Amino acid sequence: MALRLTIPESPSETDRDAVIAPLRAYNIRQAGDPRIRPVAILLTDEGGDHVGGLWGKLVYDWLFVELLAVPEEYRGGTTAPP
Amino acid sequence: MALRLTIPESPSETDRDAVIAPLRAYNIRQAGDPRIRPVAILLTDEGGDHVGGLWGKLVYDWLFVELLAVPEEYRGGTTAPP
Repeated sequence: MALRLTIPESPSETDRDAVIAPLRAYNIRQAGDPRIRPVAILLTDEGGDHVGGLWGKLVYDWLFVELLAVPEEYRGGTTAPP
Repeated sequence: MALRLTIPESPSETDRDAVIAPLRAYNIRQAGDPRIRPVAILLTDEGGDHVGGLWGKLVYDWLFVELLAVPEEYRGGTTAPP
């Protein structure tokens, strides 16, 4: 009983799904539905340009921050009122 | 000079791109093209089913492993000859 390894030339989303499927199944067995939801906080400057922000996801009600970008010239400042 | 924050109800790939753009631009300025390429190693059992593997990416010629899944019953074993 042995596994075969294949290394696709151009890995696809289907390949990613094949790798993640047993991890997802394990997590669901152990802890139920992770209720995964993407989260974004977008930063827009006065000219209307997107200049960064936060990208992450909610998993089991925990926030995982994947990306965080604040342009140097805006750091230490405040945000405009909503 | 203040930034506006927006939190989209349904974050999209376009939102992710907006967050990652300044990070990408910074990296390219500092270190040149990161030459990002996805990498997959797929595990297939004798019945032809995909049962896990590795998913990651090459960035600046470094391998980042994002996902790794080997089914419990195959751990400690060997792989079939190619």
